Amino acid sequence: MIRQITEDRKKRIDGVLARRQKDLTLIMDNIWDPHNVSAVLRSCDAFGVAGVHLYYTDSQWPDLAKKTSGSAKKWIELTRHVDAADMVGHLKAQGTRILRTGFSESARPVMDFDFTKPTAIILSNEHRGTSPELAELAPDEIYIPMQGMVQSFNVSVAAAIILYQAFVQRDAAGMYDNPSFSREELESLKTEWYSR
Amino acid sequence: MIRQITEDRKKRIDGVLARRQKDLTLIMDNIWDPHNVSAVLRSCDAFGVAGVHLYYTDSQWPDLAKKTSGSAKKWIELTRHVDAADMVGHLKAQGTRILRTGFSESARPVMDFDFTKPTAIILSNEHRGTSPELAELAPDEIYIPMQGMVQSFNVSVAAAIILYQAFVQRDAAGMYDNPSFSREELESLKTEWYSR
Repeated sequence: MIRQITEDRKKRIDGVLARRQKDLTLIMDNIWDPHNVSAVLRSCDAFGVAGVHLYYTDSQWPDLAKKTSGSAKKWIELTRHVDAADMVGHLKAQGTRILRTGFSESARPVMDFDFTKPTAIILSNEHRGTSPELAELAPDEIYIPMQGMVQSFNVSVAAAIILYQAFVQRDAAGMYDNPSFSREELESLKTEWYSR
Repeated sequence: MIRQITEDRKKRIDGVLARRQKDLTLIMDNIWDPHNVSAVLRSCDAFGVAGVHLYYTDSQWPDLAKKTSGSAKKWIELTRHVDAADMVGHLKAQGTRILRTGFSESARPVMDFDFTKPTAIILSNEHRGTSPELAELAPDEIYIPMQGMVQSFNVSVAAAIILYQAFVQRDAAGMYDNPSFSREELESLKTEWYSR
């Protein structure tokens, strides 16, 4: 069966694909709560993240079928990994800087980073933090300055704030005005998205 | 019984109170989901919001006792209202601009606002949006630009992003370096917070 697609929807998809940022990504490191995973993917969609990397070694990738906001999942390319060195090596070979959330002495605030550069941000398990083998490969820490009594952010809130900061910088630099995918990549993505 | 308080904790409380922003606030308009309410309060604490206004007319104020992140509630002054005109009038009399999230033609993006000015942001019920009587009193709309296929943010994510934007501006303007409360207000708050 061929599903009908309206011109409006085609236009919408074309516009969203033209704004997708190929070189802004997240690594989801064993985030287990489906609320959080679903909210993170929704923020990715909203700020034009094309794909995220799933590093699930201790936790199961949660079932998002029952989440009302699970629909964002449909529009984000998910790539699974089990080998941290392989994943990090591949990203670094593409010129991607890798950051992880953390509060060590050398950590720098989110406002201090230039997110117009190719960047991957590791978001970690709610209880255990960044997997040690991954932390070792990606020592650069980023934090959101907190002014209050409670000393942590929910992981989906942290993701949203970091991606918003990246969006503001990339938007100011005009990076949402020109596609980050090549013409060929765009054509192939369009064909695929039209059928979703 | 008098509870012991360590010098470290006193210092911590003093520091947090010195960074509290008296003139940055939220109006929670019938937000019903305890996850969302709890996450919003956590972001308030993190970005130095001193107090929020609770406008609950259709929904019950949710029970936060079971939320692990409910502890932020302890550090935010909660003021209940049932009369929208009274609440809005009181805020306006203090020189507070009131914004609500929305997408009408006159809505402006979050990056375009000057949050160093006294500001209250209305965050609304997850399903019904802003209460009509409140919307009428506060017509100015603010939105977070979205680049994706899904057309809405979770309310706690929206709150976090707006408060982060306010924080960045206020931080750059040095507003976290000098207390927004008077010396008398601070002394009274300290006494109260030490016993919490």
